[in-house]
Amino acid sequence: MTQLLMAQQGKITTAMEQVAAVENCSAESVRERVAAGVAVIPINSHRNFPARAIGKGFSTKVNANIGTSPSRHKNEEELDKLNAALEAGADAVMDLSTGGDLWATLDLILKNSPVAVGTVPIYRVVSRLFAQKRPVTDMTVEDLLEEILLQAKAGVDFVTVHCGVTRQAMEVLDGCGRLMGMVSRGGSLMAEWMNKTGQENPLYEHFDRLLEIAAEHDVTLSLGDGLRPGAIADAHDRAQLFELNLLGQLAARAYKAGVQVMIEGPGHVPLSQIAADVTMQKKLCNGAPYYVLGPLPTDIAPGYDHIVGAIGGAVAAAAGVDFLCYVTPAEHLHLPSVDDVRQGVIASRIAAHIGDIEKGVSGARQWDEKMSRARRKFDWNTMFELAIDPPTARARRAGSEDAKRDVCTMCGDMCAIKTFERALEK
Amino acid sequence: MTQLLMAQQGKITTAMEQVAAVENCSAESVRERVAAGVAVIPINSHRNFPARAIGKGFSTKVNANIGTSPSRHKNEEELDKLNAALEAGADAVMDLSTGGDLWATLDLILKNSPVAVGTVPIYRVVSRLFAQKRPVTDMTVEDLLEEILLQAKAGVDFVTVHCGVTRQAMEVLDGCGRLMGMVSRGGSLMAEWMNKTGQENPLYEHFDRLLEIAAEHDVTLSLGDGLRPGAIADAHDRAQLFELNLLGQLAARAYKAGVQVMIEGPGHVPLSQIAADVTMQKKLCNGAPYYVLGPLPTDIAPGYDHIVGAIGGAVAAAAGVDFLCYVTPAEHLHLPSVDDVRQGVIASRIAAHIGDIEKGVSGARQWDEKMSRARRKFDWNTMFELAIDPPTARARRAGSEDAKRDVCTMCGDMCAIKTFERALEK
Repeated sequence: MTQLLMAQQGKITTAMEQVAAVENCSAESVRERVAAGVAVIPINSHRNFPARAIGKGFSTKVNANIGTSPSRHKNEEELDKLNAALEAGADAVMDLSTGGDLWATLDLILKNSPVAVGTVPIYRVVSRLFAQKRPVTDMTVEDLLEEILLQAKAGVDFVTVHCGVTRQAMEVLDGCGRLMGMVSRGGSLMAEWMNKTGQENPLYEHFDRLLEIAAEHDVTLSLGDGLRPGAIADAHDRAQLFELNLLGQLAARAYKAGVQVMIEGPGHVPLSQIAADVTMQKKLCNGAPYYVLGPLPTDIAPGYDHIVGAIGGAVAAAAGVDFLCYVTPAEHLHLPSVDDVRQGVIASRIAAHIGDIEKGVSGARQWDEKMSRARRKFDWNTMFELAIDPPTARARRAGSEDAKRDVCTMCGDMCAIKTFERALEK
Repeated sequence: MTQLLMAQQGKITTAMEQVAAVENCSAESVRERVAAGVAVIPINSHRNFPARAIGKGFSTKVNANIGTSPSRHKNEEELDKLNAALEAGADAVMDLSTGGDLWATLDLILKNSPVAVGTVPIYRVVSRLFAQKRPVTDMTVEDLLEEILLQAKAGVDFVTVHCGVTRQAMEVLDGCGRLMGMVSRGGSLMAEWMNKTGQENPLYEHFDRLLEIAAEHDVTLSLGDGLRPGAIADAHDRAQLFELNLLGQLAARAYKAGVQVMIEGPGHVPLSQIAADVTMQKKLCNGAPYYVLGPLPTDIAPGYDHIVGAIGGAVAAAAGVDFLCYVTPAEHLHLPSVDDVRQGVIASRIAAHIGDIEKGVSGARQWDEKMSRARRKFDWNTMFELAIDPPTARARRAGSEDAKRDVCTMCGDMCAIKTFERALEK
């Protein structure tokens, strides 16, 4: 039984109660939102951890992508990345491993993660083929569905499935004259497989079999945007919107089957188009939770894409995005390091919080108010406790000359707050 | 003769020609905008460097605040900060020194800066008093005007003057119940001086004398926002808007006197209020250039305020802000280091560029397009050359395992761009 089916039957689950406690709302209001399909609680029926909800009215959540690649695969490093993501406050992680012993890495992450774990199953099928020097066309429909079933049984909480990269979608893409073509790994693999085998996307054609697996193990489906723009110039072309439209139809089928579903979004999008992007997704997908990568409102900042992603993410969250996939400073350059993971999660959490202030999420504005009250009182300990990254704030001040005084080295005795207090003296 | 007066007389100056060359427009269109007061070219008549314009239709400019403080004052370090700011692409710097030999530091910066240099003259008057253990109330009207005159003669290109912190403004503030009171150093010093001496703000009362000095040496006035909000909860209260309204009136007087003028803005502002803030400033100040600090749409991220400022700055620039004052990771904690300066400038430049894309600034979208074309072709050298911070992008890739291959360690052979190329093969 999925959270969605139980919600529809009026049952309040332990997961819903856990969500209610952290979101400061009633369990009944959690149930209502899950039942309506405007929120999901990704937790595989074989897993047990404090559940978090993604969707309408809940705080904006942050996902960290971790995992190996063919040229860098050390399980200890992945465990360090998982811990860095958790310490920085990630609400979910995705294991996107494509190198080394894939099952060992996923097992390690599932065992050690107290937050939802997601994957992109096609990566693992194709990684095994590539390791044997075989092409993607050797993948069978059964390989892919079998992989998803195994992962569902192993406890994976949500999976990205590129169901919208259909033969018709590829035809639409053909006329778009994109700068970057496809930048989705899973989507492009599916495109190559389809174009070379002449067959339809199995995740589309056999969507009902996918729903059966997802329903049995309560795996939340994250409908991937294989046709997301990879350059701001490519945003909101016919290919992107064709796919989004199709994902909305598939989301409706998932909902009817009692399967929890969310929609993935871009990607590279100019700043002024981000709010419209969110409005369209909500309309086309009946309010299903929206999970975006970035978005990145410029292409020109490799090395700083966590900042670019935070800019786009804040605007997206304020416009109603429910779930932000972080972007690290390594984006477009290399596999993220442990420190990149930390930087990426913090940047995304800043964006999520700015969105929460605008969404009116419970406690969001109060957090800022508490910080400002502590600042006015020179209560440094409270400022550090309230800081989005307490150790960093603490270490920065500890390393400065005025660390033992109440002022800081920026202004010293010419502190505006102190001057203003004197100005108020009668 | 100021650039404004010459523009009004139909003269095209060398500075206007320099601006036209980099902004890819005609010198006549530069002249028109300066003449209308919707753009300024801050360049003191005693200085000679390639001028840049701030205002309508020009690319969004970035300022870096550098300078000493009483507990940290090393002139070599300030030179390093200046060079870091320039290398990172700052369009202007402000010397906000308050410690050590203030004239030596300013001289050093003026001698070495090929971009406009700004100051806050009251800092220097009060720093001297504080160094002698004397209170701000010992400052005389003549001390302040004399300091501004000396700096004008020395070549300072723009000065922040808190003319709007009047006795009436303080009365308005009194009823606002702010969390943070005043967070402007210059503004709070003026408030203390007024409240304790019982006199009116000399920069307001003697505004005409200020205009005479500015006109004679072509010092651009940056009308400071002493009542800017220092917490998002304080944004857009009566005190902030009373001062902005007054600054608009003073800007009109400066314009009539042939003095170039821009307006300073906040500060801490919730994301959804940033665009409205810009709209109000443009209306109340007859389109005078807007120079904002941040803005910061959340208070809770000490150690990461460059990211918070980039989020607010991008939205502000997209809404029409002309000039961004950077915020560094040191904000709210300590005086910025050389590396903080670099990080701050890059973050603000990202915000400025995202704004430029939305403003339709010449060449802005083309920059992104060139980057994406290089990315699709795996032309790493071009990508590095186009990166906002080429050395950082280059070093990151050079340190990764796949640096000698065309792919990167994120995806290796499972590269979406390569897969998509294969998918297109017939």
